[in-house]
Amino acid sequence: MTSTTAPVPEADGETASVRAARARSAEIEQRIARDPSMFRVLTGDRPTGALHLGHYLGTVANRVRLQDAGVDVIVVVADYQVITDRDETGDLPANVREVVLDYLAAGIDPRRTTVFAHSAVAALHQLMLPFLSLVTVAELERNPTVKAESVDAATRQGRSMSGLLLTYPVHQAADILAVHGNLVPVGTDQLPHLETSRTVARRFNQRYTAAQPYFAEPEALLADMPTVLGNDGAKMSTSRGNALELRADEDETAAYLRRARTDSHRHITFEPGSRPEVASLLRLGAHFAGTTPEALADTIGADGAGRLKEVVTEAVVEGLRPIRARRRDLAADGRAVVGEVLARGAARATVLAEGTLADVRELMGTVYS
Amino acid sequence: MTSTTAPVPEADGETASVRAARARSAEIEQRIARDPSMFRVLTGDRPTGALHLGHYLGTVANRVRLQDAGVDVIVVVADYQVITDRDETGDLPANVREVVLDYLAAGIDPRRTTVFAHSAVAALHQLMLPFLSLVTVAELERNPTVKAESVDAATRQGRSMSGLLLTYPVHQAADILAVHGNLVPVGTDQLPHLETSRTVARRFNQRYTAAQPYFAEPEALLADMPTVLGNDGAKMSTSRGNALELRADEDETAAYLRRARTDSHRHITFEPGSRPEVASLLRLGAHFAGTTPEALADTIGADGAGRLKEVVTEAVVEGLRPIRARRRDLAADGRAVVGEVLARGAARATVLAEGTLADVRELMGTVYS
Repeated sequence: MTSTTAPVPEADGETASVRAARARSAEIEQRIARDPSMFRVLTGDRPTGALHLGHYLGTVANRVRLQDAGVDVIVVVADYQVITDRDETGDLPANVREVVLDYLAAGIDPRRTTVFAHSAVAALHQLMLPFLSLVTVAELERNPTVKAESVDAATRQGRSMSGLLLTYPVHQAADILAVHGNLVPVGTDQLPHLETSRTVARRFNQRYTAAQPYFAEPEALLADMPTVLGNDGAKMSTSRGNALELRADEDETAAYLRRARTDSHRHITFEPGSRPEVASLLRLGAHFAGTTPEALADTIGADGAGRLKEVVTEAVVEGLRPIRARRRDLAADGRAVVGEVLARGAARATVLAEGTLADVRELMGTVYS
Repeated sequence: MTSTTAPVPEADGETASVRAARARSAEIEQRIARDPSMFRVLTGDRPTGALHLGHYLGTVANRVRLQDAGVDVIVVVADYQVITDRDETGDLPANVREVVLDYLAAGIDPRRTTVFAHSAVAALHQLMLPFLSLVTVAELERNPTVKAESVDAATRQGRSMSGLLLTYPVHQAADILAVHGNLVPVGTDQLPHLETSRTVARRFNQRYTAAQPYFAEPEALLADMPTVLGNDGAKMSTSRGNALELRADEDETAAYLRRARTDSHRHITFEPGSRPEVASLLRLGAHFAGTTPEALADTIGADGAGRLKEVVTEAVVEGLRPIRARRRDLAADGRAVVGEVLARGAARATVLAEGTLADVRELMGTVYS
């Protein structure tokens, strides 16, 4: 498995703040290369079922890269997030199992990376209370995650926003700050999402620490991982039903990619703005072939979309082979393995969160013995 | 110390729902008398300093009565509530100490009654997350505590509502349901305040339990403890500076009551509607003399306000004597005693809350081992 670390330059539409974040992320990547022990990454997923290629290229491969670079990576399986905008939890144990097995298959090493279920670490949740006092309801309502999901939930289900959805940015702050995460991988569209966590850290320091700040303001690490399109040309997502699961076998992968939408231009070029479907296939193939989308486009050129699909299929099938193999090895004993990984992860997250909570109690003066 | 248990009938202005709650509370009092082990009371205070006579007559004496009747009483010292509507925590350890010492002096027995600091029980706070998913933001905004405090905070301090204030009804639900409290003493004006806790219990049962409901919907126990007026005729409150502290000595008590507002009618009668200041003094005196305000008024009659104040002062001084004596005995070793009481309380509350959290995890399906 290969992945590029240099930010992919985008042709147009970058705001000054995205450019600044990109520059800052490049600088952080250099510091990671020099001394990875400076960083602790906090990231995670809602456990809504098996992971697909979009998850893999979008986030999981980057976590594996950071882990392999020596960064302390902590992954929260955000089981309580499942109910922010819906009533049904689904088959949570099965969904959590699939996600964790996919992590392991994709190269997450539980001896180096901490994977824990959100609901398993009580100390982390207690931080919600002091943190909720540091933000106003108006600020929570302006958070882009809250806004987007609120509109989405109202549109899809005609329901009004739950208390859990409104307070989502504060859970996120608790997740990150409880373990003293100082780096959070995000896409360019997610840059403002981290603002509440930064605000909470800053205000806590202002209010409760005299000299030395206690919480570091977590920084965004802009992942250069692009959005992967499904074979219908829309963003790949489980709920849309256009996803290729990471555990798919060779035949399923080939059949899936054969049906991928392309466009009417025969000559293959990498032009994300005007040819998104072809660009997504090129990115996918390039990721697994260890090359760049531009170089891959050049090798195909006039051979057209049919050849493109063949090349991409081969690269994806080869690239997923070791992942599939690990997944198969794990499957036999999956339940026990997942239980062990989550228990180990919860134990470490609990130690970290209880330490933070003890410090917070001390700083706030809520120690009465 | 004496206290009456029969609800004091009010002359006017009772709504049907208050009358119904009063009838229900009378029924609960009968069940308490028959089998107090059926009930677990959850109640508490914001630790903002030493308690005054208003706290004592309004809530603390009632807790002691319930404790002495054999009910399992759990008192939360709600330290996180101090920051719902302000930034400063004040000297929390000192304020918590004063409150706990006042509890003990007033007759709370830590071997029978559980007293714990809110910030000391992590498992309780985790319940916030699933509970927040069960209520909408619109419902939280309609909660009367939130509404009242929001207006108050905005008026006094020009500040917008904090996330902690908006979510207050859910913390309350977590406090009550974490320990399976099924009875919450309230005044008539607080009847609607318990609705969010009842809603959370009901919706949790609907969503996560198939047959047998898991949480009991907590019931309000209408306390017949009246509002105590300060000597300026307004409701007694620390922040208003019109309070007589429970720890006040004889001279302070006498001086305070000498300055109490009365009215221009010489003949003393118990008419709460038209003569609130005189009525408040009569209630105070009657409480400590173990009689009724009406009977006390009859013994004074034409002797007027001067005699009323003498009689009330004597009753209050006598009534507070054992409380003052206990307070003095405790003061020497206050810090250690308070630490011990809170540690004992936190240990029991943690056992209860962790048991509830384990059940909730099981019911929600967030167990992955």
